[in-house]
Amino acid sequence: MLLPAPAVPGLPLADVDTPALLLDLDAFERNLGTMTDALRPFNVRWRPHAKWHKCAEIARRQIAAGAVGVCVQKTSEAEALVAGGVQDVLIANEVVGRGKLARLAQLGKSARIGVCVDDAGVVADLDAAARADGSRLDGYVELNVGANRCGVEPGAPALRLARIVSGSANLRFAGLQAYHGAAQHLRTIGERREAIAQAVEKAGDTRRLIEDEGLACDIVTGAGTGTFIYEGTSGVYDELQAGSYIFMDVDYGKNEWTESGIPRFEHSLFVWTTVMSRPTAERGVVDAGLKASSVDSGMPRVADVKGAEYVQASDEHGVLKLTGARLTIGDKLKLIPGHCDPTVNLYDYYVCVRGGKVEAIWPITARGAVW
Amino acid sequence: MLLPAPAVPGLPLADVDTPALLLDLDAFERNLGTMTDALRPFNVRWRPHAKWHKCAEIARRQIAAGAVGVCVQKTSEAEALVAGGVQDVLIANEVVGRGKLARLAQLGKSARIGVCVDDAGVVADLDAAARADGSRLDGYVELNVGANRCGVEPGAPALRLARIVSGSANLRFAGLQAYHGAAQHLRTIGERREAIAQAVEKAGDTRRLIEDEGLACDIVTGAGTGTFIYEGTSGVYDELQAGSYIFMDVDYGKNEWTESGIPRFEHSLFVWTTVMSRPTAERGVVDAGLKASSVDSGMPRVADVKGAEYVQASDEHGVLKLTGARLTIGDKLKLIPGHCDPTVNLYDYYVCVRGGKVEAIWPITARGAVW
Repeated sequence: MLLPAPAVPGLPLADVDTPALLLDLDAFERNLGTMTDALRPFNVRWRPHAKWHKCAEIARRQIAAGAVGVCVQKTSEAEALVAGGVQDVLIANEVVGRGKLARLAQLGKSARIGVCVDDAGVVADLDAAARADGSRLDGYVELNVGANRCGVEPGAPALRLARIVSGSANLRFAGLQAYHGAAQHLRTIGERREAIAQAVEKAGDTRRLIEDEGLACDIVTGAGTGTFIYEGTSGVYDELQAGSYIFMDVDYGKNEWTESGIPRFEHSLFVWTTVMSRPTAERGVVDAGLKASSVDSGMPRVADVKGAEYVQASDEHGVLKLTGARLTIGDKLKLIPGHCDPTVNLYDYYVCVRGGKVEAIWPITARGAVW
Repeated sequence: MLLPAPAVPGLPLADVDTPALLLDLDAFERNLGTMTDALRPFNVRWRPHAKWHKCAEIARRQIAAGAVGVCVQKTSEAEALVAGGVQDVLIANEVVGRGKLARLAQLGKSARIGVCVDDAGVVADLDAAARADGSRLDGYVELNVGANRCGVEPGAPALRLARIVSGSANLRFAGLQAYHGAAQHLRTIGERREAIAQAVEKAGDTRRLIEDEGLACDIVTGAGTGTFIYEGTSGVYDELQAGSYIFMDVDYGKNEWTESGIPRFEHSLFVWTTVMSRPTAERGVVDAGLKASSVDSGMPRVADVKGAEYVQASDEHGVLKLTGARLTIGDKLKLIPGHCDPTVNLYDYYVCVRGGKVEAIWPITARGAVW
């Protein structure tokens, strides 16, 4: 079922029904400008992750602001964004299976497509798929720089795989994917700086090893909102993937951000919700539960209202503990999602708001695109 | 974006790309039969919750098996299922706001629509909406029988509200909603039995109080998969809402189920996933993360494979700890979702499988219908 848009431009925010996903355009645009300004002195490329916003309109605005293209995680996300006009997409993730590889090769005929690899067998399949379709794909060797998820180990294993990519007729060895996902939410600046120092060392040593073998290693790519300042000033990373900064969320808000030189981003994404029950003096219930705001990284936070804490989520209910907030049935509130990424994936549209009114409705182009 | 169906009937399961949501039709049909058999001696109505499956095709099959209709939680779910041919829907939840109440009243002209109330002001708004549209709605007073979420307290507060509903020209006081959500996942049988004994007492006393005032209180409705045997044999509940039994999930699987008389249900819902990386001997990574299988109630479980535990979910990755399972890149696995309800809401289609082949594709009619 294609859901209808939840509002029309011009509608006062107060009249937007709930739950709805709100994008505060002023805050969003300030975040975009802050990142553009922050990156200017670094002399690095910027390829923001779009798995987070899944939206062709936002991708186009990021590219207009200077991004070279976007990252995604899934083949279907790449298809959706290329269809939405994005011409340069890196799938910052491994892709396996003949069906998906054939789709990638097909996509490579209408856009520049990069993909990560961590296995020689998959490289052979990828090369065969590109050959069958007469296209050419960029292959990035993914390094395990500390997240212990996918990726080959730095050094000799990465060199071996780089040689295989480089020797594949329909692939171009484009460089190294060196994203340290586990570092993004280390709470203190010291922990994040230290984790990235180790990633930088692993990526830098591996690049030298590869270049010493006579292979060009054009791009070392990685970084997220929690750490991009360290990759950006490392002299090793050529491309930054930070994406979450455009929205922020409660989880990122818990990071320590006080070091000089780290730009501050604002919350721009909210779940709009209605108080649907007031059973006791201390308890309110809102109509946004875990199908409206993902709780994998903790509860959402009530914005702009003091004395109201979102303490419990069930499928379609959120329980507020009230300690002073005066809320009555029908009142509408903004929630800051615990984790923006899976929250966005629950909705079909951003309701874009400015000055208390709906200014635009942006489709979430790649909502549900998991394969 | 309306996503394309992930498979076509006749395709071997092995060729279905991942992640996909699989419904094992044999297990699903056995669960449906087991519930029908279990309810037969109870002499109660059966109104399974559809917030769980969100699927008109499944609702129609439940009704063909004897259900009087279905429950949902949201106005948009009711709209989707009525459009899919369901003629009797109880919104087992409060609905507030003029826009939604007008939609409910409109829906009441083409189907029998019930809704829960726990506030006199909302009852007045609901009555006005029904009057404006010339329809008539069933109002159920929701009792707090122990979940401490929405609902009025048993006894005098419920009687007061029942009188108000009963005195509303365009509403019919249909009875009491007395669902004890918090009891469903109490792990031991003793805890669940005791929690429902208290709910039964509260609902029974309140019904007597209302009937002593001369008001008909036709239906006491409630119960879930974890407890329906107790509501069903209580002599107080007239209608059971258990719905999860058709799929089961890891969370329900953790309940103790050994008491004689409690039917056993099977896991019929799975997330189909591919091993996408094998970085170390002990670590495998699959392509189903928390956007493919909700983790709010814990991690998914690997089905049918020994020595492989799903230990960590990120947005698009699931990390398996391998202790003996032989898995190679490209292997496909079934995961049992931690919590079926929000997992289903991530997909647009059930891939219905029997005998190793796709038999049908069923749209998830009310996917994303949160408002």
